[in-house]
Amino acid sequence: MTVLLCGDMDAAEYAEWGRHLRAYLPARETLVLATEDFDPAAVEVAFAANPPPGTLARLPRLRFIQSLWAGVDRLLRDPDLPRDIPVARLVNPAMTEAMVESAAAAVLFLHRQYPAYAAQAARGEWHQRVQPLARERRVGVLGLGELGGATARALAGLGFAVRGWSRRPKQVEGVACLHGAAGLGRMLDGTEILVNLLPLTAETAGILGRDTFARLARGGGVVNLARGGHLDEAALWEALDSGQVGHAVLDVFATEPLPPEHPFWRHPAVTVFPHVAAYSHPETAAAIACRNLTRFRAGERPEALLDLGRGY
Amino acid sequence: MTVLLCGDMDAAEYAEWGRHLRAYLPARETLVLATEDFDPAAVEVAFAANPPPGTLARLPRLRFIQSLWAGVDRLLRDPDLPRDIPVARLVNPAMTEAMVESAAAAVLFLHRQYPAYAAQAARGEWHQRVQPLARERRVGVLGLGELGGATARALAGLGFAVRGWSRRPKQVEGVACLHGAAGLGRMLDGTEILVNLLPLTAETAGILGRDTFARLARGGGVVNLARGGHLDEAALWEALDSGQVGHAVLDVFATEPLPPEHPFWRHPAVTVFPHVAAYSHPETAAAIACRNLTRFRAGERPEALLDLGRGY
Ligand SMILES: NC(=O)c1ccc[n+]([C@@H]2O[C@H](COP(=O)([O-])OP(=O)(O)OC[C@H]3O[C@@H](n4cnc5c(N)ncnc54)[C@H](OP(=O)(O)O)[C@@H]3O)[C@@H](O)[C@H]2O)c1
Ligand SMILES: NC(=O)c1ccc[n+]([C@@H]2O[C@H](COP(=O)([O-])OP(=O)(O)OC[C@H]3O[C@@H](n4cnc5c(N)ncnc54)[C@H](OP(=O)(O)O)[C@@H]3O)[C@@H](O)[C@H]2O)c1
Repeated sequence: MTVLLCGDMDAAEYAEWGRHLRAYLPARETLVLATEDFDPAAVEVAFAANPPPGTLARLPRLRFIQSLWAGVDRLLRDPDLPRDIPVARLVNPAMTEAMVESAAAAVLFLHRQYPAYAAQAARGEWHQRVQPLARERRVGVLGLGELGGATARALAGLGFAVRGWSRRPKQVEGVACLHGAAGLGRMLDGTEILVNLLPLTAETAGILGRDTFARLARGGGVVNLARGGHLDEAALWEALDSGQVGHAVLDVFATEPLPPEHPFWRHPAVTVFPHVAAYSHPETAAAIACRNLTRFRAGERPEALLDLGRGY
Repeated sequence: MTVLLCGDMDAAEYAEWGRHLRAYLPARETLVLATEDFDPAAVEVAFAANPPPGTLARLPRLRFIQSLWAGVDRLLRDPDLPRDIPVARLVNPAMTEAMVESAAAAVLFLHRQYPAYAAQAARGEWHQRVQPLARERRVGVLGLGELGGATARALAGLGFAVRGWSRRPKQVEGVACLHGAAGLGRMLDGTEILVNLLPLTAETAGILGRDTFARLARGGGVVNLARGGHLDEAALWEALDSGQVGHAVLDVFATEPLPPEHPFWRHPAVTVFPHVAAYSHPETAAAIACRNLTRFRAGERPEALLDLGRGY
């Protein structure tokens, strides 16, 4: 029973993932790395960390793909991805914890006006700004899945007035939930801090654009923790210039690493993080991937299966 | 029945407080402002917002002092403060909410390494730092009263491993509580982010000093939201220089406003706020002060009475 580890990784990452996966792999399975010699016809399962396009199509007896990442937009962009076998993404509670912490940090950073006070500090200016309480602050969360749902719940727990948005109707404790195209405008109107936790699909690409920014409260904050493809960079630049958006916290970018000369790095109204909101912990991720493999082998339905039609 | 409003306030502040207090004042009471002509012998109750020393001693029939601030260190420094009548401080749930939000913002700012990533951004450097989860992060809270207790509980709710410290034994949900001189070292040892919410007294002055910093985890964060007198500025400077303290978030200072030329303003490892962590909302504060006045008039024990002996 051969399992292939394949991905966009360097030798050290292959070694690290290989070590953790072998620690949890059922005894009857054999793990091979895509960097080694192996028989493509022997591979039944792939642990996929965004392998080069075409990799998975070359495995004639492949029956199950387990992504090692939570976001699968890059995997699904492979035009030769086999579309007749199940593909699971990785849902990792430790990653959800990290994302909730990142989102709460960014929302509180904007709520408590850190950027404005940093600008005052540079001038040595002691000036007390009007400060609403969290319950007077309208926060919007795009996406109410694993990460967005937990984030919206945590922000409501901190007292914020939270609205959330998903494709289908949802219920999240303490959160006003809206859905679908009709719900989007209502969730955006007057939002003061907008957090994006959508998957990147044909429908959500560019959603952080001019129309969305125009509906926010003037001077609102934008927090993109999902994918660079969600953001229309030119529209953000314009909204920052006009003051419609007051500050953006960005963790993800169209091009990663963000090139050193990209103007976002030093824009006073942009806080840049290098895609660290919630990275995979290989150890916990390996345990979860191997557990899902075991479910598949036992003939059970793997967890977190993708719907290739809808794109997430 | 005459109530005097006295404090260190300008005309606009007198007018604002006067307006809010009159809106809640029982009909049989008359409010006079210290800036107006009034008969000192008629005053039975003072609403005190840090009046000049000696002010309260000049009121021969004074029977109750209601501070309009939560922190009473300045009021208690008046050598002529009448020590034989009850003095209450202001406990305002809206202020507690604001403080919890400020403390959570500062702790998450340090936890998620905003200062280090800002330094990287200035260099255009894409580098992913090791990032523990909140549950792996040891946070300490000095003071477990109204503000410290609520803050410790909220930080534990966010997942942090929280230890708290008070004078007497305490129980706070989800928080490891230590107390007294013997408990201080144990609460500090290995603490990665230390939040100060003690009242300023003879015993707590200078507590954020060399001995305390030496016990923190190397590169730890210090958040002072209580009083400038708690901080030994020279010791902090030295600890920042040596790297023992990695970053400080300071809301309060020995001299306020912090002079424009003070080096903290532009120190890369110090984030300065102009005493805004939780300011009094005159409207809610007025309602609470008038309710306590009514308790006093009814012969009940006013809420939040000070113990002048212990100094808080
Ligand atoms: N920055 C980082 O470090 C990092 C780390 C991990 C993940 N991420 C990103 O976070 C994304 C979200 O992850 P997740 O685990 O929360 O995904 P998920 O569980 O699949 O949730 C996706 C949510 O988005 C909603 N949604 C999808 N398409 C929509 C549309 N067209 N209109 C309205 N709502 C739509 C879904 O609605 P329904 O509930 O109706 O299906 C669902 O609520 C990932 O795809 C990845 O890109 C970033
Ligand atoms: N930055 C701002 O905007 C702002 C706004 C409001 C207040 N503050 C500051 O916050 C301070 C705390 O307010 P609070 O309402 O929480 O006060 P509080 O309810 O009186 O609580 C004080 C806490 O400190 C503990 N404590 C006092 N002396 C101690 C000592 N020698 N050793 C150990 N623990 C000691 C007390 O222990 P016990 O529980 O055993 O009594 C109690 O837990 C105020 O005094 C004020 O200076 C700042």
